Amino acid sequence: MCHGDDVNCPHFAVHYKTFKEDMNVERRGFLKSSFAAAGGLAALGAGTMTLVTPELAKASAAKQPAKQSYHYLPANADTVHWGYFSKTLKPQVEVDSGDIITIETLTHHAADDLERMVKGDEGAESVYLWTKDKKGVDRRGAGPTDPAVYKKGSGEGMGVHIMTGPVYVRGAEPGDILEVRIIDCVPRPSANPDFKGKAFGSNAAANWGFHYNHLLDGKKREVITIYEIDATGGRNWAQAAYNFQWVPQKDPFGVMHETIDYPGVPVDHSTTKRNYDVLKGVRLPIRPHFGTLGLAPAEVDFVDTIPPSYTGGNIDNWRIGKGATMYYPVSVAGAMLSVGDPHASQGDSELCGTAIECSLTGTFQLIVHKKADLAGTPLEELNYPMLETKDDWLVHGFSFANYLQELGSGAQTEIYSKSSVDLALRDAFKKMRHFLMKTKGLTEDEAISLMSIGVDFGITQVVDGNWGVHAIVKKDIFAGMAA
Amino acid sequence: MCHGDDVNCPHFAVHYKTFKEDMNVERRGFLKSSFAAAGGLAALGAGTMTLVTPELAKASAAKQPAKQSYHYLPANADTVHWGYFSKTLKPQVEVDSGDIITIETLTHHAADDLERMVKGDEGAESVYLWTKDKKGVDRRGAGPTDPAVYKKGSGEGMGVHIMTGPVYVRGAEPGDILEVRIIDCVPRPSANPDFKGKAFGSNAAANWGFHYNHLLDGKKREVITIYEIDATGGRNWAQAAYNFQWVPQKDPFGVMHETIDYPGVPVDHSTTKRNYDVLKGVRLPIRPHFGTLGLAPAEVDFVDTIPPSYTGGNIDNWRIGKGATMYYPVSVAGAMLSVGDPHASQGDSELCGTAIECSLTGTFQLIVHKKADLAGTPLEELNYPMLETKDDWLVHGFSFANYLQELGSGAQTEIYSKSSVDLALRDAFKKMRHFLMKTKGLTEDEAISLMSIGVDFGITQVVDGNWGVHAIVKKDIFAGMAA
Repeated sequence: MCHGDDVNCPHFAVHYKTFKEDMNVERRGFLKSSFAAAGGLAALGAGTMTLVTPELAKASAAKQPAKQSYHYLPANADTVHWGYFSKTLKPQVEVDSGDIITIETLTHHAADDLERMVKGDEGAESVYLWTKDKKGVDRRGAGPTDPAVYKKGSGEGMGVHIMTGPVYVRGAEPGDILEVRIIDCVPRPSANPDFKGKAFGSNAAANWGFHYNHLLDGKKREVITIYEIDATGGRNWAQAAYNFQWVPQKDPFGVMHETIDYPGVPVDHSTTKRNYDVLKGVRLPIRPHFGTLGLAPAEVDFVDTIPPSYTGGNIDNWRIGKGATMYYPVSVAGAMLSVGDPHASQGDSELCGTAIECSLTGTFQLIVHKKADLAGTPLEELNYPMLETKDDWLVHGFSFANYLQELGSGAQTEIYSKSSVDLALRDAFKKMRHFLMKTKGLTEDEAISLMSIGVDFGITQVVDGNWGVHAIVKKDIFAGMAA
Repeated sequence: MCHGDDVNCPHFAVHYKTFKEDMNVERRGFLKSSFAAAGGLAALGAGTMTLVTPELAKASAAKQPAKQSYHYLPANADTVHWGYFSKTLKPQVEVDSGDIITIETLTHHAADDLERMVKGDEGAESVYLWTKDKKGVDRRGAGPTDPAVYKKGSGEGMGVHIMTGPVYVRGAEPGDILEVRIIDCVPRPSANPDFKGKAFGSNAAANWGFHYNHLLDGKKREVITIYEIDATGGRNWAQAAYNFQWVPQKDPFGVMHETIDYPGVPVDHSTTKRNYDVLKGVRLPIRPHFGTLGLAPAEVDFVDTIPPSYTGGNIDNWRIGKGATMYYPVSVAGAMLSVGDPHASQGDSELCGTAIECSLTGTFQLIVHKKADLAGTPLEELNYPMLETKDDWLVHGFSFANYLQELGSGAQTEIYSKSSVDLALRDAFKKMRHFLMKTKGLTEDEAISLMSIGVDFGITQVVDGNWGVHAIVKKDIFAGMAA
């Protein structure tokens, strides 16, 4: 009998629909179960030495409803916005401080292999739908949406990430801090029965990569490598499936894309040359995390998702995964949190332009800390995105801490030509100095000495317009301090 | 009875001399014992997945004497050179390939607190001797030695590290690789009975630091923080003892030093204001390592020790400690290895200009790999200093891979104004690409993809003229590859 896998069956269409629905139920069940597997609510709040003092925790908890609610936000054409943050968007869901939410996220590189990363996945199919007549999500980027103006496509690809959200957090106002605890983070299994139990990601060595003008033969090329991940969790490493060199692609609207210059252009694999003899035996440890997680900034209505800034966004630090907590300064009412750019793994610097871009589902707890309660706590005056892991605190320096403000009206284009690691290091130095002085009560001289001997500065990314350097300080350095 | 600790005893001078000798015997014994404690020869060669293939190991071993010899090189005015590498130096010791050598090293910041770091220590006292008539080691730096020319002092402080050596390795010739295994690395205990069981280091937030022009009050200041380390090994963290702001110091020859501009200027603590209320409760994990370890380059007779280059030198990577192995391209006959700039701890970037500068004693095994045996092995074509740890391989990128060659006759001054992290990242990218292609047989496309998703780029230092970025790749990524 046909299980939706025999195109010659007279009832194929019906069988296939049933199969897809079953798959989606199964997959949705898998994604939902990950929260329970992570220990659910019971696992929360077990951390020690967090930036939230017991007094602040109490004050913030007192403003929460008596009972925490659980929400689920799937990813589909109705729940995502592609390529931009915007305070003007209608929230997809409203939550209270303290609530838990599971959010599906889709990689914006799935069109590199629709068969493995989209086919059979209703949510992804609705987002990636693109025929000569219709796009599931038309606008992709913060750029022009007027067909008379844009050249590459609506939004012009000025911003590329598929963002699920925004989530409106009741009670969050400018000046507050939103604490985002990442409770879980799991790969989204392929919905194509040919690849059952597997998940896939794409790595694009792209024109915006740090390597691009320095290839050995002096010529330019873009190369996509597709990676396979064990979606059952049995293996903690990824392996390459195949690679191919990008060749110009005509999108369904008829626009030619000589390079990777617009997100979601479906790759026609009759035009590519796949090479399956790639990275044989190489096992890449997976580090599932969200490349882009952050809040809508107040400065501009439509903000390119590529450059990270003071409200977070595309920080691209692989440590922003399961077990980590982010603290963001709230810039607009409701915080307006969006999540996207899921990665199965990335190295510090994201050298070639991308990570293993792989759809993930995350579970988060969102907690509002009100400005009035922050005085005298480590979160007072926090005006940058801060990461806390089990062992470390990290600040994120950018070439421009708030480029929208610093670079003025031309910020969204100028940022792409003004960055350097040196500038990002300077910003990371200043933020770590602030953190150590404010949070640990150190003098400037103490903070500077400590930074040279006990803080590690690493290169987060050099491919996101506003380049990043992170600074890591171990919590146990302070274990002997009086509270 | 007076044990050399009662200045009122009529025989104090004799007792004190006996005490000092006993101390030195005891300390020397302690330092020597560290090699045995580390397992001695039996501990060697247990590593797996090293860059030395079994065939190469066999070929290299065949050229070694049947029996390995053990050598001990103390640090004193006769065995050190201060502030420069030089192929023209007379070797302090000649060893065979495969031999073990323990080398004492002295920090060049000990004059920040002579009482804790020099007093009673015969070797250090001979090096730091500086009266109005005599300097234990006159030349400090690669600069002019003509009193009619120099302004700060002989050598002009163009290079600052006290280097023990050089060690001449028989059979090493240009084109060969010298493998340097760091078997042990222990702090040098204070010889002052007031500080028995402790070791000390100095951290200078100095004029060459990355922070210097960005202090909160807009003014410039240099601050020294003295750190205390448990020399018995009972505690694996350092704590601050006190700090003081640098005030102009007149050296014994009468030259005023407004800033820290010449190494070994004795600080007169009647002119400083010590602050003991510093970093209370803060525990800095120690990471003992050698900031400057490398070979004499062929290009120039006297080379400033500050900028690192292709033969190693002042790489300032805290991972170059116990258990690590360095591979250096040999540039001159005998390799001419020198060691100095010992650090108790440092963070990636060495932001304020220095680490915890603390005298250490290291034990090394030196192995020559002949050029003719390198063909087809991972060490073929290696023309940069490479670090191997238990878990990782690291390449070191510099703003200029070989600045002496690239910048020409003015290299030794120009290097101080031409560096950036961006350039160092580019060099690290190129070296890691070379390493992955050469060593693991990857194509360029494979190497570039792997670098973006599985290699971490960090900032080694931004204070050594030739700025550094390291790239870390985990060995176990390749565990599944066919040998």
